[in-house]
Amino acid sequence: MATLSFPTPAPPPSEDAEKLKKAVQGWGTNEKAVITVLAHRNATQRKQISQAYEELYKEDLLKRLESELSGDLEKAVYRWIFDPVEREAILANVAVKKGSEDYQVIVEIACVNSPAELLAVKQAYQARFKRSLEEDVASSTSGDLRKLLVALVSSYRYDGQEINTKLASSEAKILHDAIVNKTFSHDEIIRILGTRSKVQLNATFNCYKDEFSTSITKGLSGAAKNEFLSVLCSAIRCITSPQKYFERVLRNALSKPGTDEDGLTRVIVTRAEKDLKEIKEIYHKRNNVALEQAVAKETSGDYKSFLLALIGN
Amino acid sequence: MATLSFPTPAPPPSEDAEKLKKAVQGWGTNEKAVITVLAHRNATQRKQISQAYEELYKEDLLKRLESELSGDLEKAVYRWIFDPVEREAILANVAVKKGSEDYQVIVEIACVNSPAELLAVKQAYQARFKRSLEEDVASSTSGDLRKLLVALVSSYRYDGQEINTKLASSEAKILHDAIVNKTFSHDEIIRILGTRSKVQLNATFNCYKDEFSTSITKGLSGAAKNEFLSVLCSAIRCITSPQKYFERVLRNALSKPGTDEDGLTRVIVTRAEKDLKEIKEIYHKRNNVALEQAVAKETSGDYKSFLLALIGN
Repeated sequence: MATLSFPTPAPPPSEDAEKLKKAVQGWGTNEKAVITVLAHRNATQRKQISQAYEELYKEDLLKRLESELSGDLEKAVYRWIFDPVEREAILANVAVKKGSEDYQVIVEIACVNSPAELLAVKQAYQARFKRSLEEDVASSTSGDLRKLLVALVSSYRYDGQEINTKLASSEAKILHDAIVNKTFSHDEIIRILGTRSKVQLNATFNCYKDEFSTSITKGLSGAAKNEFLSVLCSAIRCITSPQKYFERVLRNALSKPGTDEDGLTRVIVTRAEKDLKEIKEIYHKRNNVALEQAVAKETSGDYKSFLLALIGN
Repeated sequence: MATLSFPTPAPPPSEDAEKLKKAVQGWGTNEKAVITVLAHRNATQRKQISQAYEELYKEDLLKRLESELSGDLEKAVYRWIFDPVEREAILANVAVKKGSEDYQVIVEIACVNSPAELLAVKQAYQARFKRSLEEDVASSTSGDLRKLLVALVSSYRYDGQEINTKLASSEAKILHDAIVNKTFSHDEIIRILGTRSKVQLNATFNCYKDEFSTSITKGLSGAAKNEFLSVLCSAIRCITSPQKYFERVLRNALSKPGTDEDGLTRVIVTRAEKDLKEIKEIYHKRNNVALEQAVAKETSGDYKSFLLALIGN
């Protein structure tokens, strides 16, 4: 469930646009007013506000906000204002350009989304950047990492609920053999992870646990760490349980010295309208502290207020 | 342009259904009557006829035709009656199950169709077979051939007209190096062929010709033949010129001792509503004989009549 709260019915978009105009007009910006409006509107409402703003003031709301806000708040608002599909296309593009540590973002987009959602993100990517996400991922990576990432991003998985238990058992064995032999870059791992349906993959991971008395991610994390392995583990986690995966990202982001604001913002902004409630609950249980408290401790100012508003404080 | 000819307006679907019922009723089947109706109706009309037949006679037209017809005619009618997307999903499934020589069919479907058409075929495949085309291709192949085929089938290429000429030149060089060094299975070949837009790939192949004074397919066919290379050449030909590619398939099918009826039927049935007119013209120029004549010489009976009707005789 979402944590985002918004009034129903929401005020007319033109009224919100007017409030935003007042907030950005003149000397200084009223960040609180911006947050009060935007952090309590859903994707459709935000879109309508942007359109109303453009019509009323003949300027682009996003560009204006970018010039008025700064730092982490600017980044967070810039992420938030888009609808989910556009936002993920932009996140993917930023990740491709940054490379390395940001491959995790590509994995999230490829493996958390449903096949239809991933397709929509790829279509938005093409419309916006005039290239395919696949070719950008492929041309900015190499070796085994490329094979894995391109397979994940390219896949248009079957989305049905059918499970082939015999296949799950035989592919669990293939995965186990590859892990035991430390041939993680094994083509078979990429084939299985890149083409099977999520339901089938979860059955395979369960078979793995049953037959080898350890989870596949534990099997993998026993090995020496490298980029390929970390992408592989992220993919498995995203497919197995997106909520647990995102709790992990939040935990790492908040526990990092100096805090990883990019990761923190990304998870809160992308999940607030989806499943941040579940992620919050998992976080609380796992860390014995409420997510709100942890976020409040590690952030400050308007950025903090914005995140807390999205978390549903 | 299509070669298929059909009356406008077409007779009411119920009238056609009635003609077909008469043709299949009682002792023996009136194949000529079946051909007269079905070989002169477009995809929409054929669908309407099937529906009218089902409503009127409470039986499946396709199943009835299958039990009434036989041999090459049965196969051809079975292919023809579906709409193009369903037909290609079925062709892909047959090819996956047959393997080896039939990989060419997978390449055609992946590389001749537009990205949106390929997506539609993959959706039809999933709806019909409860699995993805990608996973079936991946699990029935191995090694470099798998990598190439899965990349081609998975790709959701950018469909815009933009060309990056610098990129075309640099990737032409990468392809040339791979071919000169005989590392055809080079990851870079698969990356380029599997992810770039068709317009961009054609620019790259043109650069190849300009810079190295030979076409890329000539460069490839100079090498020892194997399955991977033949799939690679087919992919390049399908991307460069589908019509020339299909002329080649027809030529090979007709010149084979005993004739390759599967290839012959496939090209005529799949292209009759699309571009068989251009393919016919290329065939005539290349072989100094009209396609109709060649087909008439190598086939016989009702199968021959059916193909000739689709060719637009």
